[in-house]
Amino acid sequence: MADPSTSPPLTRQSVVEAHGLIRHHVHRTPTLTNATLTALASAPRADLRGTPWEYVAGTTAGQGTGEDGKGGGEKRRPANPTIRLWFKCENLQRVGAFKARGAFHAVERLRREPGGAAGGGRERGVVAHSSGNHAQALALAARENGIPAHIVMPTISTPSKIAATKGYGARVVFSGSTSTEREAACMRVIEQTGARLVPPYDHPDIVLGQGTLGLELQEDAAALIHAAAASGDASHHRHHGSDERAERLPERVIRAPSTVGLVAATAGGGGKKKKGLDAILAPCGGGGMLSGVALSCEGTGIRVFGCEPSFEGADDAKRGFESGRRVEAVRSLTIADGLRTPLGRVPWGVIYERRLVSGFFSVGEAEIRDALRLLLERLKLVVEPSAAVPLAVALYNEDFRALVERESGAEGWDVGVVLSGGNVSLEALGRLFAGDEEKTKATET
Amino acid sequence: MADPSTSPPLTRQSVVEAHGLIRHHVHRTPTLTNATLTALASAPRADLRGTPWEYVAGTTAGQGTGEDGKGGGEKRRPANPTIRLWFKCENLQRVGAFKARGAFHAVERLRREPGGAAGGGRERGVVAHSSGNHAQALALAARENGIPAHIVMPTISTPSKIAATKGYGARVVFSGSTSTEREAACMRVIEQTGARLVPPYDHPDIVLGQGTLGLELQEDAAALIHAAAASGDASHHRHHGSDERAERLPERVIRAPSTVGLVAATAGGGGKKKKGLDAILAPCGGGGMLSGVALSCEGTGIRVFGCEPSFEGADDAKRGFESGRRVEAVRSLTIADGLRTPLGRVPWGVIYERRLVSGFFSVGEAEIRDALRLLLERLKLVVEPSAAVPLAVALYNEDFRALVERESGAEGWDVGVVLSGGNVSLEALGRLFAGDEEKTKATET
Repeated sequence: MADPSTSPPLTRQSVVEAHGLIRHHVHRTPTLTNATLTALASAPRADLRGTPWEYVAGTTAGQGTGEDGKGGGEKRRPANPTIRLWFKCENLQRVGAFKARGAFHAVERLRREPGGAAGGGRERGVVAHSSGNHAQALALAARENGIPAHIVMPTISTPSKIAATKGYGARVVFSGSTSTEREAACMRVIEQTGARLVPPYDHPDIVLGQGTLGLELQEDAAALIHAAAASGDASHHRHHGSDERAERLPERVIRAPSTVGLVAATAGGGGKKKKGLDAILAPCGGGGMLSGVALSCEGTGIRVFGCEPSFEGADDAKRGFESGRRVEAVRSLTIADGLRTPLGRVPWGVIYERRLVSGFFSVGEAEIRDALRLLLERLKLVVEPSAAVPLAVALYNEDFRALVERESGAEGWDVGVVLSGGNVSLEALGRLFAGDEEKTKATET
Repeated sequence: MADPSTSPPLTRQSVVEAHGLIRHHVHRTPTLTNATLTALASAPRADLRGTPWEYVAGTTAGQGTGEDGKGGGEKRRPANPTIRLWFKCENLQRVGAFKARGAFHAVERLRREPGGAAGGGRERGVVAHSSGNHAQALALAARENGIPAHIVMPTISTPSKIAATKGYGARVVFSGSTSTEREAACMRVIEQTGARLVPPYDHPDIVLGQGTLGLELQEDAAALIHAAAASGDASHHRHHGSDERAERLPERVIRAPSTVGLVAATAGGGGKKKKGLDAILAPCGGGGMLSGVALSCEGTGIRVFGCEPSFEGADDAKRGFESGRRVEAVRSLTIADGLRTPLGRVPWGVIYERRLVSGFFSVGEAEIRDALRLLLERLKLVVEPSAAVPLAVALYNEDFRALVERESGAEGWDVGVVLSGGNVSLEALGRLFAGDEEKTKATET
């Protein structure tokens, strides 16, 4: 990888420049909206029983005296925010995830180094240890640039992932499955070939590459919000039957900016002027993408929040952010398997030290699964469990929802939601929802 | 429904006018492409054993003399066409299917009738018998126009479908499940309320409404094809390792026309000029959408083909088209449950009598399931089984593939594929692929 000290400064302008370098290699993925999900996000939850938000903080069941075991804490009122959702569809990105952006940017930057193309850099190639989206993204970026890619994968990787990585033209090098063994295997490749290491998230070039999705989301959502306001969709009344309401809100899967010109040009004015997004919710694993998106929002006034699973301590970034000390190890088997990684050093600098992320919210496994089902059945998009975490926060995390209600009142927030990837097999989806099938059957009989 | 004799003539120009009437009520859904699926369509099938195309026609196993039971017929060479696929995503349409187009057009036309708005027409409302996408589409269109919708559904309909239809504000009227009982229930509603019947496909206004998707597909695909040619993607060499090849072909999920201007403006010329689509593959149930798409292509030189399941005679349109006599009844339980309907009279006039459809192709249940899996796992879109039938034709029907090879040679065809809808539950998908799960497990152990 390019020496981090030679990387462009971590600023919004550098994200704009990264976009210029990679835009012809990656998709400008669509930004979609959906009335049903926006209506769900904008209705108060019916019941907080059994959730971590059942009681007002400091008055929880454990501290109560109720005989029925339900405690005597003060019941919390469900938040009643207005949240309009804008989905950035990186599941439709090349290799099926945002990782293509960082990989192409890293390789483009290497090519531009002194000696990167001419001085043998091309022959040396790149190396990474990964069995997931980063491996495939780097293999693709390397191949399109005509340089070799060496991917270190544990011998226990599933045959389909090995085949997919080889399918992108990479040389697969097997190792043991501990991080020590994988790093040792990487070092051997580097010694033998002179390949440059491209880490999955902990490098400025990766951060800047991933951040490019934030620029597109800001631009496309602003255009769509403007169009919706101009055509009067935004002025629809709120109704309190949720089904009916779902359809009275703008349900359009509007694409930006093509449709926009059309709508804006033909519909009369009337709606009030609205700048664009108020906030972006992004999943946080190693933090490369979250920190890149935060950089892309620097100085825009758009607040960026990180979203994590709470299961088995996978909310390491949240805990680190709130305690002021980065958590360096995570051992969680959350279904959001892309988010089992601890936050990297470079992302931490952007997220915490520079305070470019406003906060973190976490959700439980059942909430992630419910959000995933909604994305599949209502938005009609195939996404991986990690990508459902931000929607789960918007729909179910009462702390986030109360924040929106408090800050925005009746006007509400336009919230960008990063759908980070779509690499999940039908079999894995089947296993995730197998329990629901039985529940459904039990209800029907 | 408006008296068919007052409907606009069934011409391309009337489809253009229908588009003007409904464009602010429906989504302009995206047109996507995908390198993996295009590469699959452009590689010869490895093996025709066990398929209906194993032997050259007229030399089938049954007529052969081979002792091994495999017959002595002449083996057929797998076709080797070049097929570039462009997917029209009507699964992202309002109510999750193209049916919204016809329903909005029908209601808009009723509103414009003499007396439609003023003379009590508004109070009388509309009625349909349907338990599927048409019911929900009509309910939505009626509600947005402020008129009542009465939907006749069999008492045995699943509670979720009844709830969904009521959710769009319709009055649900229950009936028995035979067509006689449902029609009698409709007649009673008409007598009591004066509501106008809106049939699901057999009416010119419905045909013209559904046809509007064809206009958008033509326009967006032409822009994308032009952009790909200008940026040189189209000039990539063909390689014969399918994995490698998959990624060397343009994999972009390009959106039209927004991305296009960008690509066309920045990339140098060099590619050759290409007009647009060569053909469109659309599913055929009652034929309302297929005939509308055929009208939208009238005079453009784009050939339109109907795609059907072959299971239990669901290929009624194909049989009718080839025998010159419309098949009026179908009893098939194909997994493509939207295509169990016989072809309507109005569609038949367009499709057969005016020869605006060039031919029909059918595929088996396993092929539909395989195509569905590819759409879910590779295109990352949730579609219903009926929507996978055209892709199954492009990938697996040797008659279609041989036609493309014969007609276009190395140059190939750009083929529009209509993804008609996405209304399928996770449970239904789970059941469809449950067998595969067991097969996978067996292979792994």
